[in-house]
Amino acid sequence: MENKNNLSLPPPLTSLQNPRIKQLVKLRDRSAREESNLFLIEGYRELLRAVDAEHPIEFLFICPELFLGSNEEALIRRLIARGVQVQPCAPDVFRKISYRDRPDGLIAVAPQRHLKLNDIQNKFLGPNPPFFVVAEAIEKPGNLGTILRSSDAVGLDALIVCDRCTDIHNPNVVRASVGTLFTVPVVEAGGEETLQWLRQQGVAIVAATPSASAQFTDVDLFGPIAIAVGTEQLGLSERWMSNADIQVAIPMRGVADSLNVAMATTLLLYETLRQRREKFSG
Amino acid sequence: MENKNNLSLPPPLTSLQNPRIKQLVKLRDRSAREESNLFLIEGYRELLRAVDAEHPIEFLFICPELFLGSNEEALIRRLIARGVQVQPCAPDVFRKISYRDRPDGLIAVAPQRHLKLNDIQNKFLGPNPPFFVVAEAIEKPGNLGTILRSSDAVGLDALIVCDRCTDIHNPNVVRASVGTLFTVPVVEAGGEETLQWLRQQGVAIVAATPSASAQFTDVDLFGPIAIAVGTEQLGLSERWMSNADIQVAIPMRGVADSLNVAMATTLLLYETLRQRREKFSG
Repeated sequence: MENKNNLSLPPPLTSLQNPRIKQLVKLRDRSAREESNLFLIEGYRELLRAVDAEHPIEFLFICPELFLGSNEEALIRRLIARGVQVQPCAPDVFRKISYRDRPDGLIAVAPQRHLKLNDIQNKFLGPNPPFFVVAEAIEKPGNLGTILRSSDAVGLDALIVCDRCTDIHNPNVVRASVGTLFTVPVVEAGGEETLQWLRQQGVAIVAATPSASAQFTDVDLFGPIAIAVGTEQLGLSERWMSNADIQVAIPMRGVADSLNVAMATTLLLYETLRQRREKFSG
Repeated sequence: MENKNNLSLPPPLTSLQNPRIKQLVKLRDRSAREESNLFLIEGYRELLRAVDAEHPIEFLFICPELFLGSNEEALIRRLIARGVQVQPCAPDVFRKISYRDRPDGLIAVAPQRHLKLNDIQNKFLGPNPPFFVVAEAIEKPGNLGTILRSSDAVGLDALIVCDRCTDIHNPNVVRASVGTLFTVPVVEAGGEETLQWLRQQGVAIVAATPSASAQFTDVDLFGPIAIAVGTEQLGLSERWMSNADIQVAIPMRGVADSLNVAMATTLLLYETLRQRREKFSG
């Protein structure tokens, strides 16, 4: 950042002993995130999407020597204009506080936001029928982040995280989602509560299971639907399997008996989009 | 393993100082893998698929205390019958040599196999037109492994890894592929060589790019095709973009401008399968 001085920032931190640095490092742990209701947003694209989505930011650490592009300064100016405190760090300090192999010089501390089912009640009144994903007990942050990225791409109305296992504010969810955590409404709710709510809204539950007789490209996905996906190891629980209105199989022609959960979800999301595009535009 | 004694195995190793253990730990590094032409196969499902696919195994480390299922002994007996040496380890030793959070008690050392384009020349003469993926310079082992898993699921003829960046024998490729590294033919070749070979075989090159006017579900994917996918950061190189016979776009309705490369590949693989199923069975 060539004209760094114009921003009148404090001098770079050269030690890990600063209390704000200590707070930041603690936020890698779920217990510290839950206690403080804060989390980390690392990376230019992730932070840009958070800021574009008006997600509040509490504090920003930067390291101009590590910037990869030329737009970082504009983003920092936007945050300063919103009253966010910005703290430069020396490169060796920044590399230690980053959880990435190749840090790009931006890490923010931000408050967590939690949406409940009531918060999205009247938010899906567009021209298309409502379209949700229910993710049950996904264990791996990378999978949850990838599901968010695909959900953003198809314009999903909301991702409902049930009986959550992965903390949606885990740094690896933010990273794998490439910031789409801030663009897709993410609701946290219990499984039973979600099932009742979907029933009340007249939303059909779609479950993928190898035992289904219909392939996912052969069933109607035009109406209001919630695609339910389960844990990587065990698949969907009995609650969702027995309450599914539509069961679909994804063809498996090789030796493996299942796809990665994020792959299976992405296939169902894009099949829904394909069918709706053909029906509503054609 | 209750009747361990029936297998007449050596006593468990209780130290990391054993030379075979040292060799195993070194194989986490690419340079050691390339020098020795060996690699690691960790995990029950991965090893089972390797053995089912007749992949040779050089040596096997086990830790019965960590087994998760009841079929491990049968697998070990199959390997002993093939003349593989089996070495038990104490749990604390095994946990140290494992690269997993939850080791399941099986790690094998195996020779690498390398396929060239000539090796698959006459191997795709089934009823359907040939169907390949060209993966150019994929950086993340997890993405390459996930692409393998989807490739297995659709019955791909071969994955051609061009100008490879990720070592296909990286432990995380084996893991993310859940052993489908052993069921999908994986060819390593240079980019120019691959392009010429595909041209000679009359295989059309399909490239996904946001600038394409046709959506991926609207183009014909019946004929002999190779789906070319590029790096996570930069997409496909000019070589593949300018030589593509069919350019397709994947709809992006959100704020993000691209999908994860493994997601994009999986969508194209399953769209090809859908079209061929409709055409050839209908």
